[in-house]
Amino acid sequence: MPAQPLNQRHLANAIRALAMDAVQKANSGHPGAPMGMADIAEVLWRQFLRFNPQNPAWANRDRFVLSNGHGSMLQYALLHLTGYDLSIDDLKQFRQLHSKTPGHPEYGYAPGVETTTGPLGQGIANAVGMALAEKTLAAQFNRDGFPVVDHFTYCFLGDGCLMEGISHEVASLAGTLGLGKLIAYYDDNGISIDGEVEGWFTDDTVQRFQSYGWQVIGPIDGHDSDAIRAATLEAQADGARPTLVICKTVIGAGSPNKQGKEDCHGAPLGDAEIALTREALGWPHAPFEIPQDIYEAWDGRAKGEALELNWNGLWSSYAKAHPELAAELQRRLAGELPADFAAQADAWIAACDAKAETIASRKASQNTLNAFGPLLPELLGGSADLAGSNLTLWKGCHGVQEHADGNYVFYGVREFGMSAIMNGVALHGGFVPYGATFLMFMEYARNAVRMAALMKQRVIHVYTHDSIGLGEDGPTHQPVEQLASLRQTPNLASWRPADTVESAVAWREALLRGDGPTALVFSRQNLPHQTRTAQQIADIARGGYVLRDAEKVDVILISAGSEVSVAQAAADQLAAQGLGVRVVSMPSPDTFLRQDAAYREQVLPSAVRKRVAVEASIADYWHRFTGLDGAVVGMTTYGESAPAGALYKHFGITAEAVVAAVQDLA
Amino acid sequence: MPAQPLNQRHLANAIRALAMDAVQKANSGHPGAPMGMADIAEVLWRQFLRFNPQNPAWANRDRFVLSNGHGSMLQYALLHLTGYDLSIDDLKQFRQLHSKTPGHPEYGYAPGVETTTGPLGQGIANAVGMALAEKTLAAQFNRDGFPVVDHFTYCFLGDGCLMEGISHEVASLAGTLGLGKLIAYYDDNGISIDGEVEGWFTDDTVQRFQSYGWQVIGPIDGHDSDAIRAATLEAQADGARPTLVICKTVIGAGSPNKQGKEDCHGAPLGDAEIALTREALGWPHAPFEIPQDIYEAWDGRAKGEALELNWNGLWSSYAKAHPELAAELQRRLAGELPADFAAQADAWIAACDAKAETIASRKASQNTLNAFGPLLPELLGGSADLAGSNLTLWKGCHGVQEHADGNYVFYGVREFGMSAIMNGVALHGGFVPYGATFLMFMEYARNAVRMAALMKQRVIHVYTHDSIGLGEDGPTHQPVEQLASLRQTPNLASWRPADTVESAVAWREALLRGDGPTALVFSRQNLPHQTRTAQQIADIARGGYVLRDAEKVDVILISAGSEVSVAQAAADQLAAQGLGVRVVSMPSPDTFLRQDAAYREQVLPSAVRKRVAVEASIADYWHRFTGLDGAVVGMTTYGESAPAGALYKHFGITAEAVVAAVQDLA
Repeated sequence: MPAQPLNQRHLANAIRALAMDAVQKANSGHPGAPMGMADIAEVLWRQFLRFNPQNPAWANRDRFVLSNGHGSMLQYALLHLTGYDLSIDDLKQFRQLHSKTPGHPEYGYAPGVETTTGPLGQGIANAVGMALAEKTLAAQFNRDGFPVVDHFTYCFLGDGCLMEGISHEVASLAGTLGLGKLIAYYDDNGISIDGEVEGWFTDDTVQRFQSYGWQVIGPIDGHDSDAIRAATLEAQADGARPTLVICKTVIGAGSPNKQGKEDCHGAPLGDAEIALTREALGWPHAPFEIPQDIYEAWDGRAKGEALELNWNGLWSSYAKAHPELAAELQRRLAGELPADFAAQADAWIAACDAKAETIASRKASQNTLNAFGPLLPELLGGSADLAGSNLTLWKGCHGVQEHADGNYVFYGVREFGMSAIMNGVALHGGFVPYGATFLMFMEYARNAVRMAALMKQRVIHVYTHDSIGLGEDGPTHQPVEQLASLRQTPNLASWRPADTVESAVAWREALLRGDGPTALVFSRQNLPHQTRTAQQIADIARGGYVLRDAEKVDVILISAGSEVSVAQAAADQLAAQGLGVRVVSMPSPDTFLRQDAAYREQVLPSAVRKRVAVEASIADYWHRFTGLDGAVVGMTTYGESAPAGALYKHFGITAEAVVAAVQDLA
Repeated sequence: MPAQPLNQRHLANAIRALAMDAVQKANSGHPGAPMGMADIAEVLWRQFLRFNPQNPAWANRDRFVLSNGHGSMLQYALLHLTGYDLSIDDLKQFRQLHSKTPGHPEYGYAPGVETTTGPLGQGIANAVGMALAEKTLAAQFNRDGFPVVDHFTYCFLGDGCLMEGISHEVASLAGTLGLGKLIAYYDDNGISIDGEVEGWFTDDTVQRFQSYGWQVIGPIDGHDSDAIRAATLEAQADGARPTLVICKTVIGAGSPNKQGKEDCHGAPLGDAEIALTREALGWPHAPFEIPQDIYEAWDGRAKGEALELNWNGLWSSYAKAHPELAAELQRRLAGELPADFAAQADAWIAACDAKAETIASRKASQNTLNAFGPLLPELLGGSADLAGSNLTLWKGCHGVQEHADGNYVFYGVREFGMSAIMNGVALHGGFVPYGATFLMFMEYARNAVRMAALMKQRVIHVYTHDSIGLGEDGPTHQPVEQLASLRQTPNLASWRPADTVESAVAWREALLRGDGPTALVFSRQNLPHQTRTAQQIADIARGGYVLRDAEKVDVILISAGSEVSVAQAAADQLAAQGLGVRVVSMPSPDTFLRQDAAYREQVLPSAVRKRVAVEASIADYWHRFTGLDGAVVGMTTYGESAPAGALYKHFGITAEAVVAAVQDLA
C-alpha cells in the first residue's frame, strides 16, 4: 500500500480491524476482500455516497451494492461506523443465528443492506436494475427544477463476479441502455479461491468493458485515496455511460504474511497473524474497539440528515407544483397498488368469464395485461428476446431504449440478467417488474428467481410455452421437471392457469402479492374455457378448488393448466360409467398447500384415496397429492419434436389414459 | 449478396432451398439462419471440414457444432447433401415425431450431429469442450510423427449465443487455455427475434473477443466465399489462439421481401415468398429436388473415405510403434473403463467399510478419487474455483493450464460454462469429465446438467456443501429445493451418500453409468460411519435399502445423506419405546424408483403406512414416499446464517423431531 494521508488510511484501518476481528470471532468468513477494498470504501462512503444512516429507507439515497458479498464484513463495518442501527455487539454476532450480521449481506437483516449478495455476479446485476429503475423513474417523474429522483448506484465487485456469465449479460445491457449513474469498482486483486487468477482468468477487462460501451477508468491503485477520489469524480461526470473503475488492490491488505494470497480469502487470519497485522497497520486497539475520534470521523448521521432534509425541501416544492405526480410517486415508492385495482381486476375476471374464450393462456395473459396495464403505470415489463412469443407487450408499452420514461425493456437473450435486473428494479422501488421467457429457459435464470423469493420481492415471471404443448421445437424447449422445481421453491408462488379466467386471477394474485415473486406459467396452445360458479371463481385464488363435483365422490382427478380439459374429458367418460368424479383444478399447488387444513380437507378429503393426477409435467411431483394408492398420468421422460397433438398421444397424456389409470386403481 | 462464382453460390442455394422448403412443409421452424449462413457453410463444409459421411464416428473427424441450433435445417441440409445417411425423405419429415430431423439438432437422431443445440450459448460451450478434449487428448497420446489426435472444432453461432452469459464464460476460458484449433463463425446479421438488435445488443464484438485473447477476423462479408476461405485459412494458421470470424450476413438471404428482417427468423416464408425466392436465387427446381450435378458437387463421401483411410494408415503405424498407447487410446475412445475397474472399486468400498471413518462425505469423495484416480486416466476433473472446498483435486492431478497432458481444469468461477464444457468433453470422447461447485450453484448451470441427461452423456457433477449443514455462509449458499430438482430430472442419477461407504458406491455407480450424467452430492460436515452387512453394501447400488430393521416393522424412517444418522438416533429412541423401526437409507431415490416393483415393495411394504422421512432438504419431495398418512421432517423455508449445529436445532431436523412426528401419526 502507498503512503496515505494518515487520517484516511487510519479510517480505512478501522474497517480492516473490524473485518479481521469479526471473522476471527466467528471462526468463519472472508477477511481478504474487506481489507483489500477498505481504502476504496473509505473514499466512497465518506466523500461521495449520499445516505442517511437514520433513515435507510430515504427514497433518494444513493444505492450501494456489494456484489462480492462474501466481503460482508466490509459492509457491516461501514454501516456500523457511519451510524446505522448496527451496534458493535451486532458485529460480534457475525454469522450467528438471529443476528443482524449473517455471513453474506441479507436483505432485511442489517439496515442499509440494499440487496442480498453472495451468489456471484448477481449483485452487479441488481445494481444495473437499480440504476435502470432510477433512470426510468426519474424520466417518468422528474420535472424541470425538480430532480426528486436523482441518485447514483455504486457497486463493488470482484474477479468472481467478472468471471460469471451474468456479468456479461448485464454489463452489455447497461452499456446499451446508457446507465450513466451506475459506477462499479472492480477489486482487481488477482486472487480467487483457487489461487492466482492468471491460470483461469486472463481477460483484458479494460477492453472488455469498453466493448460494452462503458467508461473504463484505471487500473488505478486501489489503495491510493486521491486516485480513487479522482476516478469517482470522473465516473460521475460521464452521464451517458456506466463506469467501471478498475482498482488494483492487495487482498487482505495489511496482513504481513497473508496479504496477496488466497489464504486470506475465505478463512480467519488467526490470532497470531492478527496481532502482526495490528502492528503493521499501526492499529493498537483491542478487538472491536474503535477510538472515539475514528467514530466521529466516520459518523455520517449529521451529513445524512442534512441531505435528506434538503431533499425533503425539494419534495415539498415538487408536491406543491405537481401534486398529482407527487402523490403518484409516493404511492409507487410505497409499493401500494391503486386503491381501485382489486375491484377493477375482479371486474376483468368476470368479463373473462362472460366472454368464455378458447385461446392460449399466453394470449389470455396478454389480454389481462391490456386490461391491467392502463391501471398500473408501475409495471415495467420485458422479455428476453421473445416479446412476440411470450406476448408480454401490451398496447401501452414503450421501450425504455427509445423512451426514457417507457415501461418495457427489450432485455435481449439474457434470461439470467433479466431476472436479476428485475430483482434490482423491485428492490429500488417504484416499479412492479415483469419479464418473460420460455418456461424452459427459466433454468438459465433459476438462481435469480430464487433470490427474489429469498428477498421477498414482488417480481413477476411470465413463462410461456409450458409443456410438450409447444410442439416442434422439441425436448430442449419442452419443460418437464421445471414446474416441480418452481412449485418446490420456498416463497415462490407459481400459477399454471387452465383458461382465461384462471389466467386473469393468476395475474391479479401476482400483483397483489407483496411479499414474494410469482411465476405465471402459460401455454402456447389454445385452452377451452371452463364453466364456473361465482364461488368457484372466488376459490381459484386458493390455488386449488373443486371445478366439477359428484354427489358421492368415488374418484378425484387433479390437474392444472392445459390438462384440466383432459381431466374433464376423462371425468365425462368415467361419469358415463357411473362413477362419482370430482375434478380439482390446481393452478397453484403451493398456494393450495398454504390454505388451512379444513379447506384442503374439503377439496381433497382424506377418505378418498382413488386419486389420479394428470399434467404434462414430471409425474413425480403429483404423488404428493395422490398418495401411495393413487396414480399420476404425466411425463417421466423428456419430450420429442413433433406437433403438439401427436406428442400428447405419444406420451399418453390423454383422457383415455386417465380413465385407464382410474380403472387400474385397486 | 455479392456476386459469387456461380458454382459456389448455386451450391449454397441448395441449402437455402432445402431449408425454406422443409420449414414450409413442417409449417414450423427457422429459415433465416440457414439461408443467411449458407455461403459460409458451403465454404467450410466443402473446402475445409474433414469428415467421412459413411462413418460419422470416425475418431479424428473435425467437429462441427451449430450453436444457433434453431437453424437446424442448415445442418440437416449439409448432412444430406454431403452424403450422410439422411435422405430427402428424412428432410421431408422435419420436425415430425420419430423423424431423424427434429426441430433442433438432437444428438443421436441424425448422424453427424455432434451435440444437441438450441438452448443458446451452450453449443459454443460444447465446442470449447471438444477443443479442450482434442488438445488434451493429443497431448496425452500423440507422439513424434504420430498426430493421431489432430482435428479442428468449428462452431457457428448467432447474436443470441453472444448475448448469453455462458458465451462469456467459455470464450474467456478458451482464450486463457489457448484453444487454437477452435474456430467460430459469428452470424452477424443484426437481427434477433425481437427485431434489430441495435436496441439491446451493441457490443463491439471484435473488441470483446480480443479482450479474451482470441484472434478476431473481420467483420467479413459472410456471403463472399473467397473472404470466408481466406478467413478460415488465417484461423487455422493461428495455433495459439481460438479464432472468431465475424461474418456480416443477411438473415434469410435470397428472400426478396423477408431477408434482413425478423419475419424470416422463426416462421415459414410462405408459399408466395418461397416462389419469389426461387426466382431471385435462380433456383428453378421443385421443393426437395436437388439436381444430380449439385449432389455430385456436394458429395463428401469419396473425400471422406480417403481422409479416414489415410488416418487409418497413420493409426496402424502408431499402433505398431506404440502398441500400449494405441490400445489405451482405443479403450478410452470406446468409453470403456479398464477391465478390472469394477473389482478394484469393490475392493475400495470394502476398505472404506473396514476403515469405518467419520469424515465429511466430500472428504470421502476425495479419498475415493485418490483410490480411483490412478485407475482411470480418462478422468478430466475440475472445479469452478472451489477446488479446496469441493475436494476434487486428488494426488495425481495436474492442471491442463500448465500441463497440456494434464487431467484437471481450473474452470474459474464459471459453473454454467464448466458444465457445458464437460458436455463437450464427454461428447468428444476419450474422457470422463467431472466438475464441481457448491450444490447451490448447480443452479447457475442447471440447463447444462439437463442437457447431459438429455444427451445421455457420462458427465459427473460433484456438488458439495449440500444443506444447511454448510453453516455460516447462510441461505444464499444453503440448498433446500435443489436436491428435489436433481432427483426429478429425467435420466439424471443423483446420489447423496450417508457415509464413506455410500460415497464410494456412488462414485462407482457414476463411473459405471454409460448412458447419463450423475450428480454426486456431498456434505461439508462430518458424517458417522454406518454398520452394514455385505448384502446391505451390495444393495446400496439399488438407490435405497434397509439399513436397520425390526422383527415386526411398525414404522419406517426414510432418509438420505447427513440425516441418516438422525434417523438412526430417532430409531434408537423409538425402539427403546418398544416400536419396531425400519430405517431405509435412500442415497439415490431416482435409482430406487428404477428398481423392480418386488424390490421396492420389499424395502417399503405397502402395508406399512407409518412412515416418516427426514432430510435437511425440501420436505415436499419426500411425500412421494411417505404418502398421505406419513410425515416428513424437512425444510419448508430457506436457511439461515449460523453454525450448522444451531441450524439443525433451529429448523428442527433432529432425532427428537422425528420421534415426535412418528408419535403424531394416527
